[in-house]
Amino acid sequence: MAANNTITAVPGITAGHWTDANAATGCTVILCGDTATGGVAIRGGSPGTHETDLLNPIRRVDRVHAVLLAGGSAFGLATTAGVLCWLEERGVGFETPHGPVPIVPAAILYDLGVGRADLRPDANAGYAACDAASDAPLPSGSVGAGTGASVAKAFGSGGAVKGGIGSACCTLPNGISVAATVAVNAWGGIYDPHDGSLVAGPRRHDGSMADPIAAILNGEYPPDAAAMTNTTIGVVATDAALDKMQANFVASTAHDGLALAIRPCHTPGDGDTLFCVATGHNPTPSNLTAITAAATHVAGLAVLDAIQSATGLAGIPSVNELNHGIAG
Amino acid sequence: MAANNTITAVPGITAGHWTDANAATGCTVILCGDTATGGVAIRGGSPGTHETDLLNPIRRVDRVHAVLLAGGSAFGLATTAGVLCWLEERGVGFETPHGPVPIVPAAILYDLGVGRADLRPDANAGYAACDAASDAPLPSGSVGAGTGASVAKAFGSGGAVKGGIGSACCTLPNGISVAATVAVNAWGGIYDPHDGSLVAGPRRHDGSMADPIAAILNGEYPPDAAAMTNTTIGVVATDAALDKMQANFVASTAHDGLALAIRPCHTPGDGDTLFCVATGHNPTPSNLTAITAAATHVAGLAVLDAIQSATGLAGIPSVNELNHGIAG
Repeated sequence: MAANNTITAVPGITAGHWTDANAATGCTVILCGDTATGGVAIRGGSPGTHETDLLNPIRRVDRVHAVLLAGGSAFGLATTAGVLCWLEERGVGFETPHGPVPIVPAAILYDLGVGRADLRPDANAGYAACDAASDAPLPSGSVGAGTGASVAKAFGSGGAVKGGIGSACCTLPNGISVAATVAVNAWGGIYDPHDGSLVAGPRRHDGSMADPIAAILNGEYPPDAAAMTNTTIGVVATDAALDKMQANFVASTAHDGLALAIRPCHTPGDGDTLFCVATGHNPTPSNLTAITAAATHVAGLAVLDAIQSATGLAGIPSVNELNHGIAG
Repeated sequence: MAANNTITAVPGITAGHWTDANAATGCTVILCGDTATGGVAIRGGSPGTHETDLLNPIRRVDRVHAVLLAGGSAFGLATTAGVLCWLEERGVGFETPHGPVPIVPAAILYDLGVGRADLRPDANAGYAACDAASDAPLPSGSVGAGTGASVAKAFGSGGAVKGGIGSACCTLPNGISVAATVAVNAWGGIYDPHDGSLVAGPRRHDGSMADPIAAILNGEYPPDAAAMTNTTIGVVATDAALDKMQANFVASTAHDGLALAIRPCHTPGDGDTLFCVATGHNPTPSNLTAITAAATHVAGLAVLDAIQSATGLAGIPSVNELNHGIAG
């Protein structure tokens, strides 16, 4: 059996997808038990989020029970109701005098322009994603929240390349695990985070790929094509014991992984949002510098995995298909 | 005469340094007239800043007259008094019933461990930087706020490489200029922002350079060496007409340029802070996506210029010296 290189390799984390390949949308839940702290960092101009304010260290709630990533734009936030129902049935939540209240921060991406616009992930989809959750390696590609994702949209949707959801995991020398799952639906192109080589750029009419940064700087990119809605969303998970401030800090720095792999990133038409959950299953004292560096590392690799694992859907070809002459 | 590829190529911007090479500290002022809007984005764990709250779009003040970058840690914020004095003498400031009040946001970096710790830039230094300001190309290297800067400190100060201050400028196809000046004093190493090749990594005892990300992930980096204080600070300037929200957005996205060129970036021991000033001298309608992409581009190149232009100081060798066998 291959090693688990996904977010479910982190002790205390299970995860599952719900996928509607016909409508080209879906959702992904990351369940983190009842000991996890959480943080969030939102960049880019067009986020869609749920229960993010309580992650601010000045708020009292100090645990998160799940994080939900969904397609469907703002409509997709309805998935959270299903996750709350699933957790309530299992007695998981913030203890109150009248029963547990599950804390489920969430973020959405815009995939209404891919597949069907009228079908979006709903509460049943969120519930089904929880039912599907396990500690098995989380599938990558055109599944879950990445089902309807696309990237490299500088020349409009006709030149896009298929996005998806991907994961990466690493273990620090002190035994702490740091992993990321990212649903990549970026306006920008995708680059190898290590050597900066272009992996997925906007496709010209002749089928060639442009470097979107060069296209912006040399005028090939038409200046009014940025209106299409995008957004990359993800979760960094670790078994380290982090307080809320540290979890927010890790979420913020992890955006550097997006910056390495998505160029341009954090544009006005992206609502890029990353969560961090820390299960605390590993009591080793944390080195926050190492954890933030690892979070950046796995976030960049998760973006790359998402694009390389994606399969074509709803007329949008994947890089694998383009590289093998199957589509494009 | 060579083209001006620095921040002073932006219409409406002048800039100047004050340098104390003996104490290995200094400051840099960017003067932006009386029409500029401003924004700021602060990341990393250890910032030192001045007059940043008024850059929030919910605050009333809608103009900035200068931005100051200084060494000297928190002590270096005293430089701002000299800039206010210089501007007041010239009648520049936010109009009030009792005279103009200059608005001068500022940020500092920690250079007390390089050269002398007891000499820091003061009000006279800030005034002198204003006197030195012009629209000539702004010098790069171990000058101004970059005088005492160092990078690549994963193995402690003994393995550091000289930092500095650098600039880059580009002109978008619609004629709008976007430039950056960055004083680079990072804990992380420096990489070419395009191809990810290592430019300045922490030096081992045998003189070889490590890749700091690899050193963290494989355990070569000792986990308790991140306490040394750092911080990279800079300014993105454009002649576009941006409102305060847009200027803040550009400042935020420009951090992606740091993420490309500094790895790891935005660590707990860095107080990385970027300002954006928009003079509005160019009435062409702004394309915010293009401006943010250009801001990221020039911020990354400015980091590279800073390290490649630096000269050794106070026992810290520059990459040029190391590459030519002069030091190390």
